[in-house]
Amino acid sequence: MKLLEERIRRDGEVLPGDILKVGSFLNHRIDTRLLDKMGAEFGLLYSGSGITKILTLEASGIAIASMASPYFDFCPVIFAKKIAGKNVSGDVITSTVVSYTKGVTYNITVQKDLISPDDTILIIDDFLANGEALKGLVDIVNQSGAALAGAGIAIEKAYQPGGDLIRGMGIRVESLARIKSMDAEKGIEFCR
Amino acid sequence: MKLLEERIRRDGEVLPGDILKVGSFLNHRIDTRLLDKMGAEFGLLYSGSGITKILTLEASGIAIASMASPYFDFCPVIFAKKIAGKNVSGDVITSTVVSYTKGVTYNITVQKDLISPDDTILIIDDFLANGEALKGLVDIVNQSGAALAGAGIAIEKAYQPGGDLIRGMGIRVESLARIKSMDAEKGIEFCR
Repeated sequence: MKLLEERIRRDGEVLPGDILKVGSFLNHRIDTRLLDKMGAEFGLLYSGSGITKILTLEASGIAIASMASPYFDFCPVIFAKKIAGKNVSGDVITSTVVSYTKGVTYNITVQKDLISPDDTILIIDDFLANGEALKGLVDIVNQSGAALAGAGIAIEKAYQPGGDLIRGMGIRVESLARIKSMDAEKGIEFCR
Repeated sequence: MKLLEERIRRDGEVLPGDILKVGSFLNHRIDTRLLDKMGAEFGLLYSGSGITKILTLEASGIAIASMASPYFDFCPVIFAKKIAGKNVSGDVITSTVVSYTKGVTYNITVQKDLISPDDTILIIDDFLANGEALKGLVDIVNQSGAALAGAGIAIEKAYQPGGDLIRGMGIRVESLARIKSMDAEKGIEFCR
């Protein structure tokens, strides 16, 4: 998606440790006009897939998923929680995720009764790099018994193994911007 | 807002410890159609206030704020982060919040360069009870030097001190549903 690539090139910051900082428009200050257009793009890519619910992960996936929902007839958005707080009760589905960015392992949790085996799920998330978070979300869909239409990712670091890993599981992955390489000095190159 | 009150009455669950569980439509599975209508309501309430940015708190405020943004000409949404991760760099504005629901104290953080003194901020959040989270967000706006138009809250527990506390600071607070009392057996009563 040209618009997102241009925005990443203009406002993204490549930091040491292979970090792409997009906090000025994607996951701290959110450019909702951009997210609306990204939502429309996901809507086109997955039109006719019969999506009944969007699944994402707190916190940075929530805005992207919510703004995409109108393009799927306002289907409900479920966000997996990273720590089961007091307000999650009853049966939950859980999966374990390793976050390389934050250097921690955590559980992601969805209340069981929020996804039914009749659902067709689209997973939406902001980043795909090692694929750990996405693998966890796929695991949750599989445990729920629902059908998985695929994943819609804002930014894929295509030089990292996550994309191949998840596509290798036979899962459709659509990323709006696929980074081939990035470097603080040489800048960002996208896959063509 | 009648629609939200009816939904709370129908799908909200009153749990021990004064907890109102609204995870089936507001903060775990999100009914984006409802949130769109809530956003329209916030848009009406604060029309003509010259809002340039919406400030909210991760995670459950993000969807509500994002879906409200189109009714403020797609103004950017900033969400305060609860823990400063590796991806927050540079100067930050910080405030301390006590969460009674989770029994913890945490810092909320916004990168300094995301809010300018020229901004007029609308704070949006899901719950107002003791007012701790809202007080922290107000503190962040004050530190930034921006103007504060007021707060838009989904559900206010009007029998708790937060609403009076914040309004007593001269801040406009608009809550779409104001709970007068709630009880697992007697049900939920709203302010009239």
